Amino acid sequence: MSPKITTELLKQLRQVMKSPKYVQEPVQAYIVPSGDAHQSEYIAPCDCRRAFISGFDGSAGTAIVTEQHAAMWTDGRYFLQAAHQMDNNWTLMKMGLKDTPTQEDWLVSVLPEGSKVGVDPFIIPADQWKRMSKALRSAGHDLVPVKENLIDTIWSDCPQRPCKPLITLDLSYTGVSWRDKITALRSKMAERKVLWFVVTALDEVAWLFNLRGSDVEYNPVFFAYAVIGMNTIRLFIDGDRMMDPAVREHLQLDSTLEPEFKIQVMPYGSILSELQAVGAGLSPKEKVWLSDKASYAVTEAIPKAYRYLTPYTPICIAKAVKNASETAGMRRAHIKDAVALCELFNWLEKEVPKGTVTEIIAADKAEEFRSQQKDFVELSFATISSTGPNGAIIHYKPVPETNRTLSVNEIYLLDSGAQYKDGTTDVTRTMHFGTPSVYEKECFTYVLKGHIAVSAAIFPNGTKGHLLDSFARSALWDCGLDYLHGTGHGVGSFLNVHEGPCGISYKTFADEPLEAGMIVSDEPGYYEDGSFGIRIENVVLVIPAETKYNFKNRGSLTFEPLTLVPIQTKMIDVNLLTQKE
Amino acid sequence: MSPKITTELLKQLRQVMKSPKYVQEPVQAYIVPSGDAHQSEYIAPCDCRRAFISGFDGSAGTAIVTEQHAAMWTDGRYFLQAAHQMDNNWTLMKMGLKDTPTQEDWLVSVLPEGSKVGVDPFIIPADQWKRMSKALRSAGHDLVPVKENLIDTIWSDCPQRPCKPLITLDLSYTGVSWRDKITALRSKMAERKVLWFVVTALDEVAWLFNLRGSDVEYNPVFFAYAVIGMNTIRLFIDGDRMMDPAVREHLQLDSTLEPEFKIQVMPYGSILSELQAVGAGLSPKEKVWLSDKASYAVTEAIPKAYRYLTPYTPICIAKAVKNASETAGMRRAHIKDAVALCELFNWLEKEVPKGTVTEIIAADKAEEFRSQQKDFVELSFATISSTGPNGAIIHYKPVPETNRTLSVNEIYLLDSGAQYKDGTTDVTRTMHFGTPSVYEKECFTYVLKGHIAVSAAIFPNGTKGHLLDSFARSALWDCGLDYLHGTGHGVGSFLNVHEGPCGISYKTFADEPLEAGMIVSDEPGYYEDGSFGIRIENVVLVIPAETKYNFKNRGSLTFEPLTLVPIQTKMIDVNLLTQKE
Repeated sequence: MSPKITTELLKQLRQVMKSPKYVQEPVQAYIVPSGDAHQSEYIAPCDCRRAFISGFDGSAGTAIVTEQHAAMWTDGRYFLQAAHQMDNNWTLMKMGLKDTPTQEDWLVSVLPEGSKVGVDPFIIPADQWKRMSKALRSAGHDLVPVKENLIDTIWSDCPQRPCKPLITLDLSYTGVSWRDKITALRSKMAERKVLWFVVTALDEVAWLFNLRGSDVEYNPVFFAYAVIGMNTIRLFIDGDRMMDPAVREHLQLDSTLEPEFKIQVMPYGSILSELQAVGAGLSPKEKVWLSDKASYAVTEAIPKAYRYLTPYTPICIAKAVKNASETAGMRRAHIKDAVALCELFNWLEKEVPKGTVTEIIAADKAEEFRSQQKDFVELSFATISSTGPNGAIIHYKPVPETNRTLSVNEIYLLDSGAQYKDGTTDVTRTMHFGTPSVYEKECFTYVLKGHIAVSAAIFPNGTKGHLLDSFARSALWDCGLDYLHGTGHGVGSFLNVHEGPCGISYKTFADEPLEAGMIVSDEPGYYEDGSFGIRIENVVLVIPAETKYNFKNRGSLTFEPLTLVPIQTKMIDVNLLTQKE
Repeated sequence: MSPKITTELLKQLRQVMKSPKYVQEPVQAYIVPSGDAHQSEYIAPCDCRRAFISGFDGSAGTAIVTEQHAAMWTDGRYFLQAAHQMDNNWTLMKMGLKDTPTQEDWLVSVLPEGSKVGVDPFIIPADQWKRMSKALRSAGHDLVPVKENLIDTIWSDCPQRPCKPLITLDLSYTGVSWRDKITALRSKMAERKVLWFVVTALDEVAWLFNLRGSDVEYNPVFFAYAVIGMNTIRLFIDGDRMMDPAVREHLQLDSTLEPEFKIQVMPYGSILSELQAVGAGLSPKEKVWLSDKASYAVTEAIPKAYRYLTPYTPICIAKAVKNASETAGMRRAHIKDAVALCELFNWLEKEVPKGTVTEIIAADKAEEFRSQQKDFVELSFATISSTGPNGAIIHYKPVPETNRTLSVNEIYLLDSGAQYKDGTTDVTRTMHFGTPSVYEKECFTYVLKGHIAVSAAIFPNGTKGHLLDSFARSALWDCGLDYLHGTGHGVGSFLNVHEGPCGISYKTFADEPLEAGMIVSDEPGYYEDGSFGIRIENVVLVIPAETKYNFKNRGSLTFEPLTLVPIQTKMIDVNLLTQKE
């Protein structure tokens, strides 16, 4: 993997940063976050602006370009990948390490007095805007919204925004109709005394209307906003997708309906003006509910006095607790996924010794087996198929330049998953096709012990997932080993493979308490730079546990693995396990 | 324990809340926090205003009185105690439970439109003021500073502010002279480009000058502020304490000194006017460093643009990392403390069966044995001497009304500690003088397993203590048991028994990373309301650990128990322990 040469691009960007055509006053720094206008983690090609300007295409990272510097903040998963993909114009800022400055501190240290820092107001979440704006202002600088995205102005061959057909999901998949979801949402709105709710996250729009799309690779979502009032439903979406008879039928667009369930379809681009109209019509004490992660542009459309901001929306929380139909679907999906991976492992065991299987071939084969399963839609993320040293690049994706051949001498790590119409999978297995070394087995067994410790943990109802993170590390810590990523994330039901509001990570504190029906991953690992990577990941369902004393009737929870893919026993040093493990 | 009857007091308070003599405009609510002007946890009798108005005298709690209501917020340690001590005028707000409103939310729900909420600006920390003021303002109310403390106006027999002699500590105890501490502080100030540092916490003033006092029971501190400039040292302190030749010699008040080490002694009450003078003399970019927990009054004395606020001061962080002299002193103190408690336990084993030992007698006997040890100064907190159901009141202190006789039929819990001139101790042991039941032994053993899990934990350098909290609960959780308090707190060196910035608690996220030399407690417990309480507490020192792989040279840490008091083996069900435990 050779780095992208960005000298010319940075020169062009620095020119437009001073051009009166795009900015009222020159900006001395320009921030290029990862996200799109919906703060999505996975984004459409047209939104990959940070990758375009820097070459670094990992899922998380923020670029800041000043007249003199170009710097990239990313987390432990991507330190190696970012270092490989970026040229010498860029400074890598390793988040989570003690000496790494925050973006704000760094800006303050490099900017001349009274600088302007520009950012696209649709791309920056309102909470980040607020924090950064405050820090910059207290150091005498200004954060300013730049309406036209400056990367787009220099991106001559920028792809078009996708606008693909929709999939409708019936009750057998969703368990709850979109009308009942709207009704439940309105009752949450009434509880909090808000009149309007703005749906900005793409997976929340998809979940609410029981629709799926394919505008973004791996995430079955479509570009849209929704604004829900107590008696109105407005869906902001482009293209002829609303002409599809199946969609019209599903949304009952042509039926005679009670007015409060009549969906008004509006152009995607009209969200700001419609929100401004909503804001202008409000009386004192009438509130509009928004996620505090909604874009600065959307948030600013509602006057401050009328905003009701929360870190997690009621849709996000409702979506996380899977109902019986969704859980049954997730179980079916995981059975199919395990069948496909067993076929793959069988094939790999035969083919790897021949020396003809590369990381890309293995990844393609995994997709081939999965695609033969019923209701397969697409992969749920880019397959991490990595052997030997590539396994230590935590979110590695094989490309021709790095493509390595699987062998009987190296550890192979496969982190992969699929979208089936009935559920989303995400599984990591680490294996050896020859004889693993004593050290490799030792490390693998510690990771396995951590995986089991989380999976078998029992905890009181209402416990936040971050309190379980250290259980995954304890066996590694005892020997002086650790890994630089969280232990688990929420998983959607035929939706995003990473979703809030729960997870298992030392990095968050504001996660919502775990409750029965939530689904998270359990994926500790160990990475030896330049040598190998180990990760063992199951998707697990939060279920009630039987305990002797049941927390004085508060209720006990534990996890049930949904993933059914075997773990390679030759990697385990059984002597390091306890009887219970 | 019968509740305090507060009907008349509340009536008087509600009168002064409307009296033009004390308030410019009537206040519809008045907040009475726990603290003093230094945000101390333990306070002098003259500062026990919340206890005076409500009867509840636990260490943590906030009272709010409106025209119609009186409500008390406190945490799980004090639910039972507060319920016992308060009369029916008061509503108990159980913090940490899901349905308990925050103070702000509650105020908004009960206040008439456009209300004024009063508070003493010296008693409320600036960060709390900010949060509460914002929440109230967004609901149309105002938080207003009431200069004269309204509780004081109705407290006819309020005790005088204490002003006791000082103790000087030489290098054999402190390891570092006050001059070297000032120099180190100034170099931290230079790093952050601040010109002034305001010392507001009493233990920080005491630590900085290697002085101790006895103005506050249990905490060897004295009422003072300090303001450190790059070339000046101002100590704000009252009384004739500066006339003591030992103190004058220690602070070199009569020596010819470099001007930057010359201490200017000023009256305690002149802090605001002096700070205002400092603030008025600043040029742009010149900053004053304050704790964000400093009082609103002190913080407001410095214009906002000149404030540099941090959650933990450099003194707080330096104080937490004990040097070799302090560690050696802490070890000596813990040996003496263990001798005293062994004498006590021997005495109890003989006397308890006679049926003549009450909780108060046992507590007094513990103090008697401790006071015979060299360099004993006082207790480090009110002894929790509790038997049977009283043990379930987490921060119980025996008083004649509740005083129970120890017997061979009940569990006895003793949480106690002392201040020695060389160190501070804090130890909890739970014991039975007859035959514990199977269930009692079971619960005790789970608590012991949690205690061992933390004490034996190995973790990478830089780990925050809150990540270890769940280790203490795991054995309890497995059986459906838990406890409603954190697992550990920082411990001072002949200073406050509770100190920041580190600890082991699921409740904090902003604790500073653990490093070698820090000292914390390890004290899981289990409480069965109405029956018994169990807690096992050691004070432990963070030390480097030997691990096989040492976290890629990041370094490994673990704990070494300083506490040497035996744990009663008859309480242990050995079958529940692993070989390692």
